[in-house]
Amino acid sequence: MGTIALLTDFGLQDHYVGTMKGVVVSIAPSVSIVDITHAIPPHAIFQAAFTLKSAYRYFPRNTVFVVVIDPGVGSMRKPVIIRTAHYFFIGPDNGVLSLAAYEDGITDMRHIQNTVFFLKPVSHTFHGRDVFAPAAAHITKGTPLRRFGEKINVLKRLAIPRLVKSNNVLKGKVIYTDRFGNLITNIKGDDFQKFTKNKKIALCIKGKKISVVGDSYQSVADGKPLMIKGSSGFMEVSVNKGSAKNYFKAVNNTPLIVAAR
Amino acid sequence: MGTIALLTDFGLQDHYVGTMKGVVVSIAPSVSIVDITHAIPPHAIFQAAFTLKSAYRYFPRNTVFVVVIDPGVGSMRKPVIIRTAHYFFIGPDNGVLSLAAYEDGITDMRHIQNTVFFLKPVSHTFHGRDVFAPAAAHITKGTPLRRFGEKINVLKRLAIPRLVKSNNVLKGKVIYTDRFGNLITNIKGDDFQKFTKNKKIALCIKGKKISVVGDSYQSVADGKPLMIKGSSGFMEVSVNKGSAKNYFKAVNNTPLIVAAR
Amino acid sequence: MGTIALLTDFGLQDHYVGTMKGVVVSIAPSVSIVDITHAIPPHAIFQAAFTLKSAYRYFPRNTVFVVVIDPGVGSMRKPVIIRTAHYFFIGPDNGVLSLAAYEDGITDMRHIQNTVFFLKPVSHTFHGRDVFAPAAAHITKGTPLRRFGEKINVLKRLAIPRLVKSNNVLKGKVIYTDRFGNLITNIKGDDFQKFTKNKKIALCIKGKKISVVGDSYQSVADGKPLMIKGSSGFMEVSVNKGSAKNYFKAVNNTPLIVAAR
Repeated sequence: MGTIALLTDFGLQDHYVGTMKGVVVSIAPSVSIVDITHAIPPHAIFQAAFTLKSAYRYFPRNTVFVVVIDPGVGSMRKPVIIRTAHYFFIGPDNGVLSLAAYEDGITDMRHIQNTVFFLKPVSHTFHGRDVFAPAAAHITKGTPLRRFGEKINVLKRLAIPRLVKSNNVLKGKVIYTDRFGNLITNIKGDDFQKFTKNKKIALCIKGKKISVVGDSYQSVADGKPLMIKGSSGFMEVSVNKGSAKNYFKAVNNTPLIVAAR
Repeated sequence: MGTIALLTDFGLQDHYVGTMKGVVVSIAPSVSIVDITHAIPPHAIFQAAFTLKSAYRYFPRNTVFVVVIDPGVGSMRKPVIIRTAHYFFIGPDNGVLSLAAYEDGITDMRHIQNTVFFLKPVSHTFHGRDVFAPAAAHITKGTPLRRFGEKINVLKRLAIPRLVKSNNVLKGKVIYTDRFGNLITNIKGDDFQKFTKNKKIALCIKGKKISVVGDSYQSVADGKPLMIKGSSGFMEVSVNKGSAKNYFKAVNNTPLIVAAR
Repeated sequence: MGTIALLTDFGLQDHYVGTMKGVVVSIAPSVSIVDITHAIPPHAIFQAAFTLKSAYRYFPRNTVFVVVIDPGVGSMRKPVIIRTAHYFFIGPDNGVLSLAAYEDGITDMRHIQNTVFFLKPVSHTFHGRDVFAPAAAHITKGTPLRRFGEKINVLKRLAIPRLVKSNNVLKGKVIYTDRFGNLITNIKGDDFQKFTKNKKIALCIKGKKISVVGDSYQSVADGKPLMIKGSSGFMEVSVNKGSAKNYFKAVNNTPLIVAAR
């Protein structure tokens, strides 16, 4: 029993993800494996961290998240297991686990060192297969965290980029762009509501105005832009039945200005 | 136990599909989840409806199909559950379920209204996660349909585009193009056989002739086109070890002429 | 119980893979299905054979591998089931199973002929659904091999391309390129080590030198190339946090020269 959720930048064209699953079911035959995504652009640690933060809380308690965005594989970066209030997170200590793990509340962190749990020989390029997948499988079978290695006290930590606020202007930016071309910003729904309360506001991205803050995509005509609170809790710029990414020619880090008039 | 089959236009690069699965296994841990596809082009309702129609009958009885191609999410379009002779279908009432559901025979239809089964807060943009996935999970656990909401009597309905027939000409068109570049038409195998029986025929697409109706791709040399009865029961235009889409520069809606000589 | 692993060139945009899984769970509801990949380029038999060889040994004993890269579907090529020391392999007899099956040690081979196990009507274009998936499901339920059809004595066989060796030069080539742009060669790690032992060597691909043989990608600076033993046991050309494919403008079959100085 138990669930293992996978998040990598391995893509789906090679055997890498399938092989990791083979390792998991070899050790823990009755575990459920769920893919979050494997299409994180190679080495895009923040994008993976944000994806994990958006998804993890919808999984069953004690799900083991295995996150392999690991440009430092085979070098000195530490493979880690983190126990949080409700979950387990496994991956390299490069920040990719940090947004989710700190949000859920870390109760224990371990350096994965005990070679008993490794596949041998351990390759220098595929710890997803030789280190992370077997560790995850063993956790679902009840192996206690202390058996994997020494306690860690510090974790490399990422953060959602801060907003620049003044009385009259809130300056955010695009932090994630999804398949539909929705531009997800670093402005939380609550912060947006607080800032705009009782104000007339102007919204601007790449020099173009967004004139509607809506409750659904249908708040505007087809092909027209709006701002809407997205499913991850952050404000998004969208185009009804279209792509805000294409409409605004925006990319990650493009600034978004919210100005009180 | 039970099977949930997923069909969406969410793609696989974001966390959306994984999150839906997290919701399902949180409610119904022992269900099998099968992906039909998530690569339906954004908002391509007919393409999804045809995909569902091609696939559903190969699944076990009582499979719950969750189909989220939902450009109207958050607006007035109804989320529905349909009980058919052998299956359950869940999705928005925009026609996407209709080809499969009417074919299998509808026995009950419900408007999904009972917020007891929703994830809260219900987002305005991701009913796949907050409405459809939990409804599907609860069905596999035996929740009766009447508990989800009021009976519906009318469903938005799509149809396979009609053939234009005369004594000597059958005019069809391409309704789906697959990964191999096979052009799937709206001409059923049986109708084609009936029309062409005891006739010499000419087949023409984009001004080019197809001179072979074959039993296998190898009925023609490599790189040559043929017409063949496809696995979904409709006639297809294919190229042996090649792509009919590229060969004929055809797309969805390209006409195909079958003429008796 | 049991595991079925799927490897095809069907892609994920159509219903084909989902439909195969529907067939499997209809016959064998409690089987675990694992995708190796479905993104093999259409009809790329060697690439699929190498992918299977790289992955299979990480799966549980008695896993049934279903491999459908089948440009000859519906023609005279034989559908086969192979029993090896630890696994079952199912697919067309076009070589795609041969690298893995011969490596693991073949103990029985059968021509899949018994129509009792086929879905009817058997299409001419989708034996993945009508022949291979049901055969795999029945094997996980314990159906003995002899029931599927007659013994076969010869299998179409592929090979890893041979190295050209002389005293001072080892000439290999790229046989697989992965998502990260790693160039996997036909030079086994052991052979490379033996050839280069106590020698000063020069490595050259597309007229450019590779000056480092490393233990991890971090053996070189970001953006710089190295040669490294890959996770499949073969030597790979990589670029730290970059793509060797782009760096060298190399493709499959590009030669790699190892010269003793």
